[in-house]
Amino acid sequence: MFIVAVVGSKKSGKTTAVETLVRGLTRRGYKVATFKHIPEARFTMDTKGKDTWRHAKAGARTVISVAPNELTVIRKVDTTKYSLEQLVAECEEDVEIIILEGFKKLIGQNLAVPKIVAAKTTDEVLEASGYYRPILALVGSIPTEAAKPKIPYVDVLKEPEKLVDLVDQKASFLLKENGNAKKD
Amino acid sequence: MFIVAVVGSKKSGKTTAVETLVRGLTRRGYKVATFKHIPEARFTMDTKGKDTWRHAKAGARTVISVAPNELTVIRKVDTTKYSLEQLVAECEEDVEIIILEGFKKLIGQNLAVPKIVAAKTTDEVLEASGYYRPILALVGSIPTEAAKPKIPYVDVLKEPEKLVDLVDQKASFLLKENGNAKKD
Repeated sequence: MFIVAVVGSKKSGKTTAVETLVRGLTRRGYKVATFKHIPEARFTMDTKGKDTWRHAKAGARTVISVAPNELTVIRKVDTTKYSLEQLVAECEEDVEIIILEGFKKLIGQNLAVPKIVAAKTTDEVLEASGYYRPILALVGSIPTEAAKPKIPYVDVLKEPEKLVDLVDQKASFLLKENGNAKKD
Repeated sequence: MFIVAVVGSKKSGKTTAVETLVRGLTRRGYKVATFKHIPEARFTMDTKGKDTWRHAKAGARTVISVAPNELTVIRKVDTTKYSLEQLVAECEEDVEIIILEGFKKLIGQNLAVPKIVAAKTTDEVLEASGYYRPILALVGSIPTEAAKPKIPYVDVLKEPEKLVDLVDQKASFLLKENGNAKKD
């Protein structure tokens, strides 16, 4: 599996970058899964008052909804100590590319996970450049003068395929390498 | 694992019965998971417009949200051919009791899954008696004259512990049996 993360401040364009990657990589034949980090305590994906919400409220540690085209597993667990490996284990084995949205602390310094940084100010670009490694690309509506470090800047809305290319190259290289390793 | 199902027509009191069981069994120390069957096509647990919803819309086959106290896995899969075993496999291994809400076709005739039937008319009671087996109890606001078959009727709101007792007895018997089997 190839893992890439899209990180950055609120409203910096992270989700737009993730959408672009998911759409482009899926079109190119990859099986893609996404992870979204939600920092809010007491968050639930469920909707207040729904049957499944009532199940969880009553104390069910796991609530699973089974619709014809969707299976959802809600686990009431403490994820604050989870490792990247534990998260990845939640994916089906045939997933080829995982795109993380957020997870700054978990993967910020992890050299095996390239980061796409979304930013909206020069300060954000500078701060990110000091914190994240490696950075694969910059995205977001950053001022022109900020877009001049050695990191490639991609205007996701104008040239979405450029961002997809960057990830595709890295992913195909890694997946091929792993494929070969298996054959040895 | 002990599996029990709460079945019945819409607004018959299924979720209230499930809540009662989850609350009572959890209080008695059981680890409980629930499954909710959702017949609607194109259903999603997610909320339109949210980041995770956008990930799925873009084509992610699996979308995972990670909040401090909740991990949710949304799989975009065709569940219509799933077996009970495949569903149960989605639960953590330490779950002791699974409560199904709905799943009429999947478990209606499965003798290993006792059913609690929620009903609101005499006709519903008769129909359920002909279809489901085995039936552990009747619940819901059924008319007095309907509550006279050989199946115990429980007024969930007035005597919740009576329903919990029925499931607790069955579950503890099965879990003990399995426990003993393992020791042999």
